[in-house]
Amino acid sequence: MAANPKAGNTKSRILDATAELFMRYGYTGTGLKQIVADANAPFGSLYHHFPGGKEELGVEVIHRSGAMYLELVSGVIDAAPDLLSGVRDCFAGAAEVLRATDYADACPIETVALEVASTNEPLREATAQVFESWIDGAFARFRAADIDEPTARELSITLIALLEGAFVLCRASRTTEALEAAGNTAAIVVEAALRGRAT
Amino acid sequence: MAANPKAGNTKSRILDATAELFMRYGYTGTGLKQIVADANAPFGSLYHHFPGGKEELGVEVIHRSGAMYLELVSGVIDAAPDLLSGVRDCFAGAAEVLRATDYADACPIETVALEVASTNEPLREATAQVFESWIDGAFARFRAADIDEPTARELSITLIALLEGAFVLCRASRTTEALEAAGNTAAIVVEAALRGRAT
Repeated sequence: MAANPKAGNTKSRILDATAELFMRYGYTGTGLKQIVADANAPFGSLYHHFPGGKEELGVEVIHRSGAMYLELVSGVIDAAPDLLSGVRDCFAGAAEVLRATDYADACPIETVALEVASTNEPLREATAQVFESWIDGAFARFRAADIDEPTARELSITLIALLEGAFVLCRASRTTEALEAAGNTAAIVVEAALRGRAT
Repeated sequence: MAANPKAGNTKSRILDATAELFMRYGYTGTGLKQIVADANAPFGSLYHHFPGGKEELGVEVIHRSGAMYLELVSGVIDAAPDLLSGVRDCFAGAAEVLRATDYADACPIETVALEVASTNEPLREATAQVFESWIDGAFARFRAADIDEPTARELSITLIALLEGAFVLCRASRTTEALEAAGNTAAIVVEAALRGRAT
């Protein structure tokens, strides 16, 4: 449908390459030259597709990575026989990906979120919106399991916090122990909330 | 005791300024010129005290900030009437500091840990050692409360993961909701572990 299908491909390659670089090197550590080299794109195409430069590209990558990650994690939860197994599977799956990628592929926006929190409002807002979309995704599932609203909200935030915190510890230690511990904790509080429904 | 007390002061000022800059801008985003400007130190003093340059300075700042933060958090826990209140106080205190510092002062090494995890082994190892020292600090307190070793280890990792994960969410959203949710979750699992001691 695009007037020039090749242009679309170039833009996609730039977005993919940037997402990959952000995960490994963060926002500040990712250079525009590296992006176009990894995307196999001419330098001019970057400003053609993203006239606002690195910041505009960054905002789009954060939203795109966030949506892809939401889809991935939602798929894992929904494929499980029940919510508790689904939550456990998220942590186990994340540990598997970390080991398989030499402890590089964890959360696609976490490094960037911390780098920009005190320095770049448009990028900070984009990361906040993505985290909120993940919290909403978990919230809908806890509500569907008849957990009351305040508990579902607290549980959803806890789930994302446990994942993000475990990612930092796992990437630093190059072990998956923290994801295992965090997964067990998530299971304990989800189970308690499910038991609490009757009261 | 130093041959030149002023030299000691300069080194301290460089370390303090770097720690502050790391928290706000991360490792990559912190420039040497900014460090000496903030430390009110001549540029040459940086390489005089840290012949290995930014990396050597970074390793020392990570260990120093890590030790100071351990002392701070241990002090909060030990000042509480009991372990459960102490854990709650950690999250409440962290939320207070975040609000007071315009959501800048969270974990002193988290941004750096994520930036260097896939790019700089000496810095990654330093962050891993600091996280492990925090886990050990919590572990000693859970063991002193008669919680068995595997549970104490899991609880200690969970505590640090909840704090680190909540910091990311709070800094991104500029609210302290995640620290409140994470603090409640920490209290639930610590209480469960304390109850489980008798069995």
